[in-house]
Amino acid sequence: MLSKKSILDVGDITTEDVMQIMDTADSFTDISKREIKKVPTLRGKTVVNLFFEPSTRTRTSFEVAAKRLSADMINFTASSSSLEKGESIMDTVRTILAMQVDLLVIRHNHSGAVKMVDDMVEIPVINAGDGKHQHPTQALLDLYTIRGRMGKFEGLRVALAGDLLNSRVARSGIALFEKMGMDVSLVAPSMLLPEDFSCFKVYSCIDDVIEDTDILYMLRMQLERQDRKFYPSVDEYSRFLSLDGDRIKRMKKGAVVMHPGPVNRGIEISDSVMGGRKSPYDNVLIEEQVTSGVAVRMALLYHILG
Amino acid sequence: MLSKKSILDVGDITTEDVMQIMDTADSFTDISKREIKKVPTLRGKTVVNLFFEPSTRTRTSFEVAAKRLSADMINFTASSSSLEKGESIMDTVRTILAMQVDLLVIRHNHSGAVKMVDDMVEIPVINAGDGKHQHPTQALLDLYTIRGRMGKFEGLRVALAGDLLNSRVARSGIALFEKMGMDVSLVAPSMLLPEDFSCFKVYSCIDDVIEDTDILYMLRMQLERQDRKFYPSVDEYSRFLSLDGDRIKRMKKGAVVMHPGPVNRGIEISDSVMGGRKSPYDNVLIEEQVTSGVAVRMALLYHILG
Amino acid sequence: MLSKKSILDVGDITTEDVMQIMDTADSFTDISKREIKKVPTLRGKTVVNLFFEPSTRTRTSFEVAAKRLSADMINFTASSSSLEKGESIMDTVRTILAMQVDLLVIRHNHSGAVKMVDDMVEIPVINAGDGKHQHPTQALLDLYTIRGRMGKFEGLRVALAGDLLNSRVARSGIALFEKMGMDVSLVAPSMLLPEDFSCFKVYSCIDDVIEDTDILYMLRMQLERQDRKFYPSVDEYSRFLSLDGDRIKRMKKGAVVMHPGPVNRGIEISDSVMGGRKSPYDNVLIEEQVTSGVAVRMALLYHILG
Repeated sequence: MLSKKSILDVGDITTEDVMQIMDTADSFTDISKREIKKVPTLRGKTVVNLFFEPSTRTRTSFEVAAKRLSADMINFTASSSSLEKGESIMDTVRTILAMQVDLLVIRHNHSGAVKMVDDMVEIPVINAGDGKHQHPTQALLDLYTIRGRMGKFEGLRVALAGDLLNSRVARSGIALFEKMGMDVSLVAPSMLLPEDFSCFKVYSCIDDVIEDTDILYMLRMQLERQDRKFYPSVDEYSRFLSLDGDRIKRMKKGAVVMHPGPVNRGIEISDSVMGGRKSPYDNVLIEEQVTSGVAVRMALLYHILG
Repeated sequence: MLSKKSILDVGDITTEDVMQIMDTADSFTDISKREIKKVPTLRGKTVVNLFFEPSTRTRTSFEVAAKRLSADMINFTASSSSLEKGESIMDTVRTILAMQVDLLVIRHNHSGAVKMVDDMVEIPVINAGDGKHQHPTQALLDLYTIRGRMGKFEGLRVALAGDLLNSRVARSGIALFEKMGMDVSLVAPSMLLPEDFSCFKVYSCIDDVIEDTDILYMLRMQLERQDRKFYPSVDEYSRFLSLDGDRIKRMKKGAVVMHPGPVNRGIEISDSVMGGRKSPYDNVLIEEQVTSGVAVRMALLYHILG
Repeated sequence: MLSKKSILDVGDITTEDVMQIMDTADSFTDISKREIKKVPTLRGKTVVNLFFEPSTRTRTSFEVAAKRLSADMINFTASSSSLEKGESIMDTVRTILAMQVDLLVIRHNHSGAVKMVDDMVEIPVINAGDGKHQHPTQALLDLYTIRGRMGKFEGLRVALAGDLLNSRVARSGIALFEKMGMDVSLVAPSMLLPEDFSCFKVYSCIDDVIEDTDILYMLRMQLERQDRKFYPSVDEYSRFLSLDGDRIKRMKKGAVVMHPGPVNRGIEISDSVMGGRKSPYDNVLIEEQVTSGVAVRMALLYHILG
């Protein structure tokens, strides 16, 4: 049992919740490696992917997770919906609830929209990203990836680098990493740093942290969430904030690179670090994060609905 | 067994069909309340949602209904289809039929398009709304909602109010309500009233019926189906045809409000009547209609394919 | 066992592969005629439809095939994806692979894109059409349709007519038809004929072949793949390259007409030959090709994943 019915904000997730989710995710990691990647656990449950913003990886990850647990997944995306007829989010939710579904996975471009829905509904809700606010399942899958590689959280040094201003991934990650006893630093130019982050150790260039950090967490430049141009130029950004072949080699032994994806190649991570089918650097964990995503989301669906 | 292979027009549905569908829907209502909302009844059947017009509630309702019966549901929507390459509806249908599917659920923006398909194909077809013509499953789910609340049809007074000219919901509902012995009145300004409805009792303001009607059926202003502006202004419309807090309180004891959704808040129903998570008025049955929709569509799929 | 892990190009498919696929397709043809059109063969396998180009018939055909084998099908189309955020095809594939899926069905508008993916991934890939290059499952379903009607391949005369320049269907078909011992002719105006096809028997009007050919394979005028107008006018095209009622009557006994669909009515095939629900000519095999498509794709999924 998790401590809350819904997963909205990492602030609601206790360390006990985290450990429970990780342990369950371990068993689901095994299932996804089997010949038959499916268990009947959630047969007859209806899960709705309610996405008011385009998404591939998160929507598909939840869909794969739900199907591996034998739940029925209904994909509802705003563009193909009666939202075109001017229906409000609340009336959309009322309609879907009346179909007696069991869980809503919601992504919305406004911060707080998912919480607003959760406040009003009885069934559990998972926040799959709301505006610049939170993306708690990303933080959980990042933790799970870290545990898989490092075997612990306590005392690990993590540096989040890039567009902190527009990143819900950063907002969720920082809070949950701190809760698990990790030591958090931030790397961002002042114009991409929100005011409420000023109490953290802040650096302006990844060179300042690259030799000491255990986890270098590169953020996606959220070009689509920037109302105006926050940064003088891509070249300028890359000079201070891009991970390239020279920099990655200076990381200490055992240190890893993470990124929530999709990567803007040549902006936050260079082509040489990304590679083709795989990164040439085995400490780049981007795909392991995706694999963790399915396992962690299976674990969440299981704990919430099972 | 229903009297026809397909559900195209309420004119084809007998009172015996209605009673049979309602009784079956009762058992499916129970299934949707269970922990495991799924029965294997239609395992191995392929149902196609063939939508040539965007839709959320109807498409999703059929998808939920099909999945709860374990059928395979294929969603085919015009925008993601080779209709962009200029393929005709008939050639699309020929292709889908050749995949040996079992049932077509069709929505199309032209009146009569669904009938045209049904005339040409051997497998059953359900009309999920064609132009301004018919939406028979809406009429059936409305009846089922009424039976659930009122326990009978005979002698009930129903008033349909609003944009009767552009409403396939009205056209189906009126015919089926009359067939079941209900007393039908209409409320609409003359410019939103089709000529062939002039034999009904017609009023121009919902105040004329609000104290006497058992069921006030508010219609959606079909802004997207109006070729030109049919009504002088939204204010003018609301003055005569909008349900607000003052008016709903004047309804007689036990009388109910229905609407096919999605509601244009502030046009046909006020925000104060709609409320947030729920309407503050427990005689507003909009969500019960959605719940009925799944049960009735499960019943139809069962009778047609089971 | 097929000779390669992936189906990319008909050049990789041996005659033994073809015969094995046809024999398996026969048993799946039977399943699609049953009351319960489903077998548990691929339960717990995840198949991804990864479509970077809009498609109805091919995408749906694979989806129906996968579902009839009880696989989980994930539909991923470029328009609803993070490709809008500038993600590369390779990074998209890396993400999907990290979800531990079992097979990728890929359509892409660039020739060679599918091969590029296959070179980099470990799991099997099926080419569902890449640019003007290849569409091998179309060639296989065409062969299966021919075998069903003719009972053999050896010595059959097939004439492919129309827009050979832009047709991946032609490119795949010609190679596989020749491999199976068929005698291939081409009918196209010089401006719609690629240079590397000049070693074939080439005619400029279907009248030149219509009385002698066993199979008249009409190609789709790929209006959407033509960068500029390749042909003076539709009238001009039809005069030499359109199949109408007069021409079809001149075909020899037992000869058949095929087309990959969707047909441009009035361009490559006339309305009178196409008909309404069915063609009035029972030697027009367009729907049989679609039916074969499901059976052949089931056979491929079975051989690759079973």
